[in-house]
Amino acid sequence: MSTTEQSYLVGLIGEGVEPSLSPPLHEAAADAHGLRYLYRPVDLLTLGRDASAVGDLLRAGRDLGFNAFNITHPCKQVVIDQLDSVSDHARRLGAVNTVLIREGRFHGENTDFSGFGFALRTGLPGAALGSVVQLGAGGAGSAVAYALLDAGAAHLALVDTDAARCADRATALAGHFPDAAVTAHSPDEVPALLAAADGLVNATPIGMHQHPGLPLDTAALEARHWVADVIYRPVDTELIRTAAARGCRTLDGGYMAVGQAVGAFAHITGIEPDAEAMRAHFLDMIGRGL
Amino acid sequence: MSTTEQSYLVGLIGEGVEPSLSPPLHEAAADAHGLRYLYRPVDLLTLGRDASAVGDLLRAGRDLGFNAFNITHPCKQVVIDQLDSVSDHARRLGAVNTVLIREGRFHGENTDFSGFGFALRTGLPGAALGSVVQLGAGGAGSAVAYALLDAGAAHLALVDTDAARCADRATALAGHFPDAAVTAHSPDEVPALLAAADGLVNATPIGMHQHPGLPLDTAALEARHWVADVIYRPVDTELIRTAAARGCRTLDGGYMAVGQAVGAFAHITGIEPDAEAMRAHFLDMIGRGL
Repeated sequence: MSTTEQSYLVGLIGEGVEPSLSPPLHEAAADAHGLRYLYRPVDLLTLGRDASAVGDLLRAGRDLGFNAFNITHPCKQVVIDQLDSVSDHARRLGAVNTVLIREGRFHGENTDFSGFGFALRTGLPGAALGSVVQLGAGGAGSAVAYALLDAGAAHLALVDTDAARCADRATALAGHFPDAAVTAHSPDEVPALLAAADGLVNATPIGMHQHPGLPLDTAALEARHWVADVIYRPVDTELIRTAAARGCRTLDGGYMAVGQAVGAFAHITGIEPDAEAMRAHFLDMIGRGL
Repeated sequence: MSTTEQSYLVGLIGEGVEPSLSPPLHEAAADAHGLRYLYRPVDLLTLGRDASAVGDLLRAGRDLGFNAFNITHPCKQVVIDQLDSVSDHARRLGAVNTVLIREGRFHGENTDFSGFGFALRTGLPGAALGSVVQLGAGGAGSAVAYALLDAGAAHLALVDTDAARCADRATALAGHFPDAAVTAHSPDEVPALLAAADGLVNATPIGMHQHPGLPLDTAALEARHWVADVIYRPVDTELIRTAAARGCRTLDGGYMAVGQAVGAFAHITGIEPDAEAMRAHFLDMIGRGL
């Protein structure tokens, strides 16, 4: 009797993933459903390997009975060439964060973008999406921007210090969402953009424990703006605290992090986990400094 | 927070291991102790690989967060060269069935021999070991013979159709147990050997579902003999049934199979599992044709 069908073995491949909260988050969600589930971090830094190892690790995992992997930095792009199939969303995004292994074949999904969609729906229900300013057009920013456009944003103003990257991303996104306007901007344009915007998203690293501070001059923030952050270490970034004090509706980075895990768990098991319980668990772990 | 310390990921490498009962047996024992434990069969036949793949599979398992592997046919000997350390018993036996991965290093143990020792103690307590006849000097036979000598057998008569193999095994065992007499014999000597023996062990495949029948002419069996079998598919081999009908004390192959798992589980987790519960679970699964 093989137990492969009745239990779940999942890995997380990336750099610096040993302290990830995904293992306890997934495992507790599985426990709530009575599923046998084990989630292992596979840290490229510990292994002394680079992103190009992801294909070998996936194949080894397949041979050893893994059901799925989450994929994170720096493998989300390079993993695509190792897969047998990729969801339309993940293909358009050019990034995969979840690989399902079914009958020996690898299928890629992206639950970073769907995780931000989940965050918007659950943390900012009814938020106006007419015009949104997004700071940061890197990897996380791409998923957030895609999610905003997928959620119906009419105008998305991408802001990045790297003008070329920003313009490339805007062009690519505009191609996938021809009914929306996606524009590229430099940071000095932010005050003027905010004057015409409904909301603001920070997808830069500024505000993380390692990069404290504010990603913009918050003088232009008004109570009518909603403000979202993708950072969750800490959950209460200086941006989120400043915006809340200003009277803005806010969406902390824990929503996207949990939304990503909710989506991955659902893909892996076919079961929709209790997202509220996962968020409570996540905030508890973050609060305990894990 | 890594969960590696608090949970157990175990594999079983060998040929034809997909129907193995070890996954449910280990997992249920872990459940009884509230341990998160996942046990995956890694079938070389399914992978289309031969015994020489065991080193690559062990290293891949280490990189992906496995805590241990059980090793079975045809890898128990070839695996030894892949390990950093081996227990004294396993080294003398020349066979490893359990590999523990600790701080990235591989350590080999043998719980086949200790499993038969467990079987003798729990299933045939107080059995006389003055003189024992053992049929079969192959891989399973080596572990059984070692266990008999380790348990204090004074004279072990090894019987095999392959005279050279039988003599080699007897010589090797005699070297490890200088106080015991280990002799090699051909099958036609069994009646005479039994006349002077306390007990009989079958370590040949004869009696398995695929090889039905009796491994000896049972005319020489008397009620004063104890009779053990290593076969557990079926548990009630023709030999065990015949011996029981003759009034002999008997030890079915389920004891060794469970003893092997009890020992592996204890090595992997540091916890002695409930051996009686594991035997009941094992017999239930066998009874259901698993």
